[in-house]
Amino acid sequence: MKYKVLNKNSVINYIYEIKEIADYFGTDEVEAKEIGDGNLNFVYIVSSLQNKNKSLIVKQAVPYLRCVGEDFPLSRERMTYEIRALTKFKKITSKFIPKLYHTSEQMSVVVMQYLDEHIILRGGLIDKKIYPNFSDHISTYLARVLFYTSSLALQSCDKRELIDEFNGNVELCKLTEDFVFTFAFMENETNDNENVKNNPLANMLFDDMEFKEKVLELKYKFMTQTDALIHGDLHTGSIMLNKDETYVIDPEFAFVGPFGFDIGALLSNLVNNYVHHHIVTGDQEYKKWLLKTIEEMLKMFDEKFFDLWDAQENSSLILDGYIDDSALEKYKSKFLTNILRDSVGFAGCKMARRVFGVAGVEEIRGIKDKGLRAKAEKMILQIAREFVLKYDSINSIEQIIEIIER
Amino acid sequence: MKYKVLNKNSVINYIYEIKEIADYFGTDEVEAKEIGDGNLNFVYIVSSLQNKNKSLIVKQAVPYLRCVGEDFPLSRERMTYEIRALTKFKKITSKFIPKLYHTSEQMSVVVMQYLDEHIILRGGLIDKKIYPNFSDHISTYLARVLFYTSSLALQSCDKRELIDEFNGNVELCKLTEDFVFTFAFMENETNDNENVKNNPLANMLFDDMEFKEKVLELKYKFMTQTDALIHGDLHTGSIMLNKDETYVIDPEFAFVGPFGFDIGALLSNLVNNYVHHHIVTGDQEYKKWLLKTIEEMLKMFDEKFFDLWDAQENSSLILDGYIDDSALEKYKSKFLTNILRDSVGFAGCKMARRVFGVAGVEEIRGIKDKGLRAKAEKMILQIAREFVLKYDSINSIEQIIEIIER
Repeated sequence: MKYKVLNKNSVINYIYEIKEIADYFGTDEVEAKEIGDGNLNFVYIVSSLQNKNKSLIVKQAVPYLRCVGEDFPLSRERMTYEIRALTKFKKITSKFIPKLYHTSEQMSVVVMQYLDEHIILRGGLIDKKIYPNFSDHISTYLARVLFYTSSLALQSCDKRELIDEFNGNVELCKLTEDFVFTFAFMENETNDNENVKNNPLANMLFDDMEFKEKVLELKYKFMTQTDALIHGDLHTGSIMLNKDETYVIDPEFAFVGPFGFDIGALLSNLVNNYVHHHIVTGDQEYKKWLLKTIEEMLKMFDEKFFDLWDAQENSSLILDGYIDDSALEKYKSKFLTNILRDSVGFAGCKMARRVFGVAGVEEIRGIKDKGLRAKAEKMILQIAREFVLKYDSINSIEQIIEIIER
Repeated sequence: MKYKVLNKNSVINYIYEIKEIADYFGTDEVEAKEIGDGNLNFVYIVSSLQNKNKSLIVKQAVPYLRCVGEDFPLSRERMTYEIRALTKFKKITSKFIPKLYHTSEQMSVVVMQYLDEHIILRGGLIDKKIYPNFSDHISTYLARVLFYTSSLALQSCDKRELIDEFNGNVELCKLTEDFVFTFAFMENETNDNENVKNNPLANMLFDDMEFKEKVLELKYKFMTQTDALIHGDLHTGSIMLNKDETYVIDPEFAFVGPFGFDIGALLSNLVNNYVHHHIVTGDQEYKKWLLKTIEEMLKMFDEKFFDLWDAQENSSLILDGYIDDSALEKYKSKFLTNILRDSVGFAGCKMARRVFGVAGVEEIRGIKDKGLRAKAEKMILQIAREFVLKYDSINSIEQIIEIIER
């Protein structure tokens, strides 16, 4: 089918041609509503008028940034990579990916489960919601996806095929290279320049060459390390959940990149939230829960990744019989320490870029009181700086928690 | 043109249909001779009967390993990557690549300059030939190819396109993974098992878990680090030269891999030759020249890579204005130390694999006296072991020379 942009009406005709969806709604009448919260894409909820529980999400990419308009072209092929990533993730760890009803790379469309009993994690964290299963769920997701798309599980040719499938996601990788690792740490027109102007904190950051040299190291890893298929933008806005269920959404930035990038994204966003509560609500209990969640997430990731590796026979990296158990354990443990280190480094970059960069986070940029906001920014940059400067000598999760608490 | 295997007769008809080649030979009569020394491919010299100076090389890949026969299938697409690599290298550093008259991915054929005044470097080194320009030439080749195909020079999208072009070279990458990093360090049917049997040195190597754990680290780098377009098999058999000219040939293993792999290949082969002379000829002068060559090659590579970097403006990694000069110098110097370290590590793997692995080198496996050969093997493994165990703490070229001399 030739690509065309759908609207509230044509989206209904479009999905009714898909048998599985026609069956889903049966003889019901349906209506489509656009949801305004998609930054990049058009998102519709299509619902049955007869049965309020029957709804689906239709998401379509347009050849520009939806929130800015046609003046900011961005190729709609981003949806191709979102579709491919969702499909892979679904196969590897079905429970944490919404049900997919239909995908079309030609139409840049995905039709999926409407998560009506779930909210975006970022919102939940700002509202001090407790998610007792989140660390367990997300660590399973991370361990399974990262392990099964790495050279620890895949044969050499399958790994290269995976690289092929995502190697074309150039535009979105470039966005990360620019906005996460570069522009936010120097004078740039895309920054939040109202805040940058005459701000000693911004001057300090932009002049912090020790920090920026380390950021280059991490940027280089992002650009050249093909560990595993990563989500690429796994902040707390890319997770929908409730107390019982956790879903990962929006993987349009997916490509074969470094293990630590997604873990770092989560770590950074949880710490941003911690700083928010430290400065704004002062809620000790919630802060404790956040630290516990960070600790559990990292620890369980470690254990689960280790377990998957233990269960794995021949891989392209390690042939059975090549190395004895005790040496292998040592190798594995070093390997996981390296993942942890990279995660901390990436977390530092991602925290720092939220302060003056183009895309702020609600937890910090949303603080109305200017004095409090400045305090929060200072604290974010302190932690981020330590993360980035020390990432390659981190040996334990405790060290990370210490840096945050101090 | 549909693929067909050429022979002594059809090869002439084939090349005469290429205008540039028909022009080259003019009205001369020509004859084709097969050269027996190609392991993987069929290689013909096509020469004018009237003018002995007019000769060309025609190289064609067949869908199996030529030296073993049709029982060992190996896809002829390896020539696709050889053609692509030769073409890229030629553009980047024309002087060190033979003139290309014709290439055809469909026919798996390349027609190129016949290097009649040059010999294979390995042979020259065994015969104690001095090549005063070799370190200068090869360091220029390495610096230019590695720099200009890396993210230090290429824009993000061009780098990913380069990865695309070579990502399909799966079979040959797998050969390296297996034969350089794995089989040669464990019981395996492909090894030189006559030498392995009841050999305490082999037992020691196969049981050396400290060594093998580090080899895994390096194998993982080989599999996942996309620094630059590398030759992939740059031993002293892939270089033809005389005192004035140096040519790099046979890049069928080319792919986007770690910076240190080609440098390590050269280092390992020069050290193998050093050990040969230490044990077999005892020629102090030649040993000195070899050490000097190693030192110069590494030092000049460093300087030239640095110079290219200095001359480079915006890259996908470093935007002008992002970092100040003194921090950038520090970053560059760390970056080059990392290249050196990886080179030493890869060199260690490559030396060690030549001892018991499937493909020996003339310098060691060619030693007729069993006692001397065992001595050479022991020395090779000692140096290789130190290279592999210490690679990630190497800080200078002097340290490398010290390890070799001791």
